[in-house]
This record gives sequence, structure tokens and C-alpha cells, in this order.
Amino acid sequence: MTESKNQTGREYVRNPWWDTSIINMEPGVIEFFGYPIEELIGNLTFSQMIFLMLRAEIPTKGQAALLDAALMSGVDHGPQAPSIAIARIAATCGVGLNNAMASAMNTLGDVHGGAGEQAVELFQNILTAVDTGQSVDNAASSEIAKYVADHGKYIPGFGHRFHPVDPRAPRLLEIVKIAADDGVVSGRFRDVALAVEAALADETRGKCVPMNIDGATAVIYAELGFPAPLARGLFCLSRAVGILAHAWEQQCQGGRNKGPIPRNELPTYSGPAKRAVPMDT
Amino acid sequence: MTESKNQTGREYVRNPWWDTSIINMEPGVIEFFGYPIEELIGNLTFSQMIFLMLRAEIPTKGQAALLDAALMSGVDHGPQAPSIAIARIAATCGVGLNNAMASAMNTLGDVHGGAGEQAVELFQNILTAVDTGQSVDNAASSEIAKYVADHGKYIPGFGHRFHPVDPRAPRLLEIVKIAADDGVVSGRFRDVALAVEAALADETRGKCVPMNIDGATAVIYAELGFPAPLARGLFCLSRAVGILAHAWEQQCQGGRNKGPIPRNELPTYSGPAKRAVPMDT
Amino acid sequence: MTESKNQTGREYVRNPWWDTSIINMEPGVIEFFGYPIEELIGNLTFSQMIFLMLRAEIPTKGQAALLDAALMSGVDHGPQAPSIAIARIAATCGVGLNNAMASAMNTLGDVHGGAGEQAVELFQNILTAVDTGQSVDNAASSEIAKYVADHGKYIPGFGHRFHPVDPRAPRLLEIVKIAADDGVVSGRFRDVALAVEAALADETRGKCVPMNIDGATAVIYAELGFPAPLARGLFCLSRAVGILAHAWEQQCQGGRNKGPIPRNELPTYSGPAKRAVPMDT
Amino acid sequence: MTESKNQTGREYVRNPWWDTSIINMEPGVIEFFGYPIEELIGNLTFSQMIFLMLRAEIPTKGQAALLDAALMSGVDHGPQAPSIAIARIAATCGVGLNNAMASAMNTLGDVHGGAGEQAVELFQNILTAVDTGQSVDNAASSEIAKYVADHGKYIPGFGHRFHPVDPRAPRLLEIVKIAADDGVVSGRFRDVALAVEAALADETRGKCVPMNIDGATAVIYAELGFPAPLARGLFCLSRAVGILAHAWEQQCQGGRNKGPIPRNELPTYSGPAKRAVPMDT
Repeated sequence: MTESKNQTGREYVRNPWWDTSIINMEPGVIEFFGYPIEELIGNLTFSQMIFLMLRAEIPTKGQAALLDAALMSGVDHGPQAPSIAIARIAATCGVGLNNAMASAMNTLGDVHGGAGEQAVELFQNILTAVDTGQSVDNAASSEIAKYVADHGKYIPGFGHRFHPVDPRAPRLLEIVKIAADDGVVSGRFRDVALAVEAALADETRGKCVPMNIDGATAVIYAELGFPAPLARGLFCLSRAVGILAHAWEQQCQGGRNKGPIPRNELPTYSGPAKRAVPMDT
Repeated sequence: MTESKNQTGREYVRNPWWDTSIINMEPGVIEFFGYPIEELIGNLTFSQMIFLMLRAEIPTKGQAALLDAALMSGVDHGPQAPSIAIARIAATCGVGLNNAMASAMNTLGDVHGGAGEQAVELFQNILTAVDTGQSVDNAASSEIAKYVADHGKYIPGFGHRFHPVDPRAPRLLEIVKIAADDGVVSGRFRDVALAVEAALADETRGKCVPMNIDGATAVIYAELGFPAPLARGLFCLSRAVGILAHAWEQQCQGGRNKGPIPRNELPTYSGPAKRAVPMDT
Repeated sequence: MTESKNQTGREYVRNPWWDTSIINMEPGVIEFFGYPIEELIGNLTFSQMIFLMLRAEIPTKGQAALLDAALMSGVDHGPQAPSIAIARIAATCGVGLNNAMASAMNTLGDVHGGAGEQAVELFQNILTAVDTGQSVDNAASSEIAKYVADHGKYIPGFGHRFHPVDPRAPRLLEIVKIAADDGVVSGRFRDVALAVEAALADETRGKCVPMNIDGATAVIYAELGFPAPLARGLFCLSRAVGILAHAWEQQCQGGRNKGPIPRNELPTYSGPAKRAVPMDT
Repeated sequence: MTESKNQTGREYVRNPWWDTSIINMEPGVIEFFGYPIEELIGNLTFSQMIFLMLRAEIPTKGQAALLDAALMSGVDHGPQAPSIAIARIAATCGVGLNNAMASAMNTLGDVHGGAGEQAVELFQNILTAVDTGQSVDNAASSEIAKYVADHGKYIPGFGHRFHPVDPRAPRLLEIVKIAADDGVVSGRFRDVALAVEAALADETRGKCVPMNIDGATAVIYAELGFPAPLARGLFCLSRAVGILAHAWEQQCQGGRNKGPIPRNELPTYSGPAKRAVPMDT
């Protein structure tokens, strides 16, 4: 407890066990990284505030526009996505929207929500190799090979089991191109991602493995300077929107204890045949 | 299964057990309420997309600015808030950011995250009474009395145990005033909220119970036409930002299994004194 | 901070902000309600420990046998149950078993996991009426009528959309009967539950609404003296077993981002037809 | 959909997308691994049912006693443990017990709940080396060295930042010894764990790093033949009890939005000093 203060009659002490650079609180005072909240309100959009909270600085309008594009493009991928299915199922179980959202967001793990984080890491590794003098194409090929050796065949941010071409990816890359031309970002991560796409096309000889939403948003997050783990965190913020929308739509549709398949269908059973419980267990 | 289709060589059937108006998916196609995602990207900000996902229509710029203000103002209230404390504690337990965020968001329940929803309901009830001919002041007083009778002394959206005046509320109301003057919203919910504030000041005779962040954002959500439960859902989206920021800051600070109080402190024990386990339990 | 102590060279103080009667901790010491853990280990079964933790006393063997029966009977109801479906879906998303279990347990809300709690309350209300002199049949009928008026047509603990007769309920009631005959419990809640069943049979004239697992376990929890909210808590402990078993089976089966329906099926779309995004949004 | 059946007038089909060996369901029928539930009820304790659900067979009484000991010994470690703190904090936020339990269980990740799983893996690796002819002491030393090289200094299952000796560990090992003498288990994992303890004592020269609860329960789970990931799952079942007990105690104590530290304490702020928001952001 390092200091004390007296305001509105109550004494407060600062407890060093909880220490933050994000927010300063006193009675009547809320400041984020030094900026008084009442000055931020009305001046920052939601995405600008997201940037400030994670980076300690207010973004430029150009940076904010890129962040907006990444965040709004990944909000939803329909009820076949685990997070969306869970949000809708949970919404029929008699819990609050906050609970349905939490059960769903919780599943944005390494497989369902981690591709953006993994793609940023891959892109960073390629750029590091480029910075030591390799060509971007060579660096892409060798880092892909390393990735496959360490983690298996799925290259994060590329390929889609449903979309032959993910309609979000080319549009996002186009926006990054414009931003790079305008000097908002360097464009280097876009070049890297395109090199990965080319290397994969090369390797698979005709079977296209085009960039997907995770790859394209990873380009944006990396261009904006976010560390890799925040690519996952930002995806959680983004997908939370679709999770909420579907939980709410399901609540409006009604239903109690919605199962994954229609009620006249039973799961298949593949265990032992009926048997008697042994006596004297 | 009502229809079938053939694209990219794979047959898909539509399953009626999962039915949504939000998103239409086909291979290579993603549309939200009919809008192709590749047209939305670059044209809508994140908050505009949030509005579209929850309301089925793209908001005007004025509506989006109000939504931005509400969403960005409630992102964080520091580590003494349960959701923020939990995010930071969870981040030291060896789980992903998505998991830390879920454990935290899950607690935005009736007490921690429900005041906005409850305030929208209260405001709607007052407006309903006004629409039957009561003055807004009378309607506010009588609905407050009903609320206290049904739910106890806490009026949702008013009063704060920490801030004598919540610095966010007057600034948000100012923005609503401007929007109402510009014809973006009616301003009727702002009038109602001010009438509630006045009624509470009257009742408590000097002990001020001013509007807080939940009351002020409830005004915005109600002015924008959101149903009450979505006030909670929107708060979840907003607070998710602070939850992420603090989970991430804690990960950067390090720590393993962070407890709520310093390590040289023990919880107080107030149970039975030491006793022997009876034989032959 | 009320006291200090010195052991193994480190000073500890007791912090009154965290106060519990459950566990006393000092370096090298763990006591539950006064019982040293090293004496409990080997003497108490898991269900006895559950009883101790929630009731502050060690149960008799007869009480423990009843608790065992209630806990073991509700562990699982297959993948059509929301909690089980979610556990399996989550297990394919790249999260830990603890995370998959949490997403699933979280949905044991008022509709999916609350029937036991609600049934205990209903039974207690009926017994209260009996204690004022009403016959158990009259009390059951009038409390059912009140319940329907307040909460709608679903009587917690009775009826099942799948099982004509829930095979768990009659067996559990039989065990309660034996325990009552042996003097372990009073048997009064069993009588009440049977009166509710009879009253529902009467009202529905032929359409049987027999007791289900929630009603039968509610009888046991009430007979054992658990407050109603703990019926939900105990169900969470019970169902956690099935949740874990299914999450684990799914992990062993493999799969990535398992959707609720097969991959060649698409959700039905019932929203607006394709439309252009208006310029200048 | 592979088969159909007609019972109680409703037709059911089996859907192969959901496939399980755990539970067979038909109207009026529930069987676990072939055993009808009505035969299991009253014959199996809760811990026997846990074993059946995870292992497909009913355990012997001796196996069940070991499982009981492991499950009951880890239920709680007081409010300084993250999972317990979160359960209590969440319980003051206006959410259900199921939600408070989920937020808490969710944090039993690699650091807070994974030591048992990691210890089983370590013990298995040592036994594998022993099976190739190494002495248990040599195998323990070399596997410890590998573990430290791969994962850092914390050896899972050994050492405690609070207890000089964890009072649960020696008592659990004693029980395993008796079970091994009785032929219930082999006792080989106990030997391995003691060899690890000895190797650590050797290396640290006087600074004792004794086995803790995670190490001792890992011995039991491994002796009983559970795969390593289930050590974490079983710990989740065990700790869920303490989580529930503390959430419930906190609900009975009352409180709204309980923060981690007393209300007259503020977190320390270590960010930028107050500054003005730049114009035209």
C-alpha cells in the first residue's frame, strides 16, 4: 500500500498487488493511458478505442479503417461453425446472453480461433528470414516446410474446407494494398502472405489453397503492429458479434434444450451390447 | 432437408433444423441479411456491422456514431470490477486468451452486467405510461416505486458506490442531446432518464443518485431502438475489450496462479476448530 | 488484517476481505470444517466429501448411499442433450478438457439444469402447506396450480419429451423407500412427489406425466436436507462426469471444428434476398 | 441415417454424424456401455460410475477406493487458488451456480490444473525407460533433465510455494502402498514418483522439493490406468466440489460485485500521466 488519498470523505490506498497501465481510477476520474474518458467519448469510434486499449495509443484514421475492416469481416460464419452452434444451443438452456456468449467464445481455441495468431507468427518468421537476406519466395517456402514439420499439414490462414475462394480474403487484401499505397502501413506482410499463397499453389500443383479470412486478417493485424496473440484476442472481439446475433435470434425463435439434430433422430450407438450388471460390485 | 444444390462438385442439402435470417452461406458466398460480405468490407465500420447483425439493417452515420459512443465508453472499469479481476486471474492459469475472456464475460450477469437491460425496461415502462397521458415526472416516480417494490432499492442505471459523479454519463447525455437536435433520434429516452434522475434526487433529499454509465448507455440503446436484452449483449461486446486488454497486460506481466490478494496474506477462517475425524465413517 | 504468524520463516497475515468456514490453511495444514485432510483421506468416499463440503458435517453411510445414487444416476443423457453436444463440439476446437467442460457446464441453466432446484422448491412449498394442516393431495394440487400460474405449463421434475417412463425415476424412488424404512430419511418428500405425480395424472386424464430424473433426484436432495439451489449445484457435479466422458470420447474420435450437422448439410436461410450495399453508408 | 425404429408411436432414425460408445438411448431405455441404468442405480457409487464412464468397465472395490481417495483429496485449496477466488467473485455477479462453476473450472488450465496430466506423462516416460533396462533412479534423473530442458524449471507434481510438506501427498502414497500390497495395483508408478522425489532432493542439495497433491494423485490415476489427459479431467471433477462449496458459501454471505481486494483499496496505476486527447482523431 503505497499512498493514500482523501476524496468525498473516503480514504483510498493503492494496493501494489494489482497494478495496471491501462486505467487510472479515482472517485469521479477514469483515464485510459492518461486520456480522460470524457474527452475520449464522442471522439473515438469503438475500433479506435479497441486499438487504444491494446496499444496504449490512439490510432490514425487510416489505421482505424484497417482495424474496422478486419474486425467486421470475421463476425460470423453461420451455425455450422462450432462457436455459433454453441451460442444457439446455449441460448435455449435458460441462461443469460452473457453466458451463451461465454460458452461460445470459450471455444475459439487453437483449432477454431487460433489460425490468425499462428498466421501472424508464420508471417513474422518469414519476414525475419527476409531481413537476413533471403528472397520472400524462398523464405516463404522454407518457413512453410518448417511449419509442416512442426505442426502438420494445415497452414494457418490458407485453404478452406467449404469455400473454394473465401470471398472475404481478396477484398481485405485490396484494402491493405490501398492503405500501403497511402503510406498507412508498409505492405510487407501483404507481400509475405501472397508469397505463401504462391508457394502453396506451387507445391500443390493445381489444387488451389487460397488465403482465407484468418490469413487476410492476420495480414492486417500484423501490418498494424499487433503481437501475434492479440490476433486471437481480436478475433474473439469480432466473432463475439456473430455469437451475440445468433444467440439472440435463437432466443427470439424460442425452443427449449435445442439438440444438435432434429428430435426424431438418435445418435448412433457403437458400444457393447446390453449386458447385466455383475452382482456385488 | 428441403433443397439440394451442386457447386464445386459437392452436393449440399439445406437442413431445416438450423434456420437463420442472419447469414446465407454457399461455397464462395457469404451474405448478411442479403448483403454480400465483399461489398460490406471497407464500407462498414465495426460498429455499423454490429448494428447490422443485430437489427438487420445498416445504420445511418448518425446512428453509428451514437452506438460507437455507447460501446467505447464502457470497455473497462479497472481490476476491482469482477470481470476484469477474473480476466487477469485466469490469464495466469495456463489458458488461452479466449478462455480468460470467456470466464470473465460469463460473469456479466444480472448484478454485474444487467443494469443496462433493466434500465431500458424501466425507461420503456415510463414511456408507456407517458403515452397514456401521464407527465414524465409522475410516470418516473410511479415506475420507480414499482421497481423498488418488485426488485429492491437499487435503481438500475443510477448511483455508483465509487464515483460521486460518473464522468461518462453527462458526456454521453450531451451527445444524445446533439443527436436528438439533429433528428438522429427522438430524445424521448433522454428526457425519461433525466426525469428518473430528478425523481431520485427529490426522494433522497440531497443525497445525490446521479445517472451512471449503465443508465447513460441504456438511453442510447433505447433511443436506437434496441430491445432491452440486447443492452446486456452490447455491454458484453463493449466490456470484452477491457477484458482482453487486462488479460493481455497480465500475460505480459507474467505470474502463475495469481491469487486475489498478496501471497503473504491468508484468507480468514471462521469455521469449526480442529477436530478428529470420527472412526468408521 | 487481524493476526500474524510465523512459520517456515515466512510471515502470514489474515485478510478479512476473504473469509471462509470451509477450509483452514496454514503452511503444512489443510483442514475442512476442522477435519485435517490427512485424516479424511482414506476414510471418506468422494460423495461423503461432497456432502461434507456442502453441509459442514460428515454424512452417515446411509445418507452417503442416497447421495451416491442421486449423483451417479444423472451423469449423462446422450449427445442430444445440449450440455453433452457442446462438450463434444468444444472438444474439436483446440481447447483443453477443462475448457470443453466449462462451456458445457455453463449451460445447465434454468431450463437445462434447473428442474431439480425448482422441484425441491415445489416440494418444500407443498410440505409447508401440509404442515399447516392440508392433506398432501390437496396441497399438491393447489401448489401445482400456483406453479403453473407463475411459471407456465412445465412442472419441474415431471414428464419427459423422450422417455414415456424415465427408467431412473422408479428405481431411485425405490431406494428412497428403503432408506425411509431404515430410518435414514423421513420419506416425506417421497410422499409429496408421489402426490404430485398422482395429481398430474388426474389432471391430464390418461396422458401420463410421470416423475423424471430431476424429480427423483430432487426427492433425494430434499430428503437429505439440501437447500434448493444446491440441487442445481449437485446436478452440475453429476453431469460434469458425462460431459467429461463425451469430451474425451470425441477427442479420441478426432475431428476439427465439428459442426452440429454433417458437412454436406447447410443451415436453412430465411432472410432477405441478395441486395446491394447502399453507397455512402 | 442407418436404421429406423418405431416405439411409442414415434419413429426415430439413427444419425451417424453423432456416434458414441458411452450411452445407448431409446424411449424408456438408458444403457451405459451396455449396462441398464436401472441396474446400475443403487449398485455403483458415484466414483464407480465415474470410472465406468471413462473406462467402459466397472471398477473393483479396491480400484474404486483409490479413485475415491484421489478425487476427494483435491476438492479445494482455499480462496487464494484462482479457481476458488473466481467462483466466489462470480457468485456475486448475478449469475447461476452453474455459471459461477463454469467460469472457475475453465481456469484449470496448463498451469492451474495441468500438473497431474503432466506428471502422469513424466511418470510414463520414466517407466518406458525402465522397461528398456534403465534403473528407476537413472531414468528419473534423465527424464527430469529432459523435462527441464523442454518445459522449464517446474517439475509437475513436486514442490509447493505454500506448503513445506503437502499433508495430502504422504497419506495418499500410503494408501497406494496398501493397495499395491493387496494386489489392487502394481505400485510401479509409486516407485517412480518416489524416485523423482529422491532425484530432486539430490539435485537441490537440501532444498526439499517434496511431492504435492498433483504428484500423488497422478500416481493413483496412472496406477489405475487412466491416460494422462484424464488426470486433468478427473481433477476438474474433484475441484468442481470446492468450487461449488465456495460459490455457495459466498452466495450465503451475500455481496454484490465483490472485487478481489477491499473496497477502500485501489489498484496501482503505472501508466502515462494525464494527457489531453488530440484534436481530430
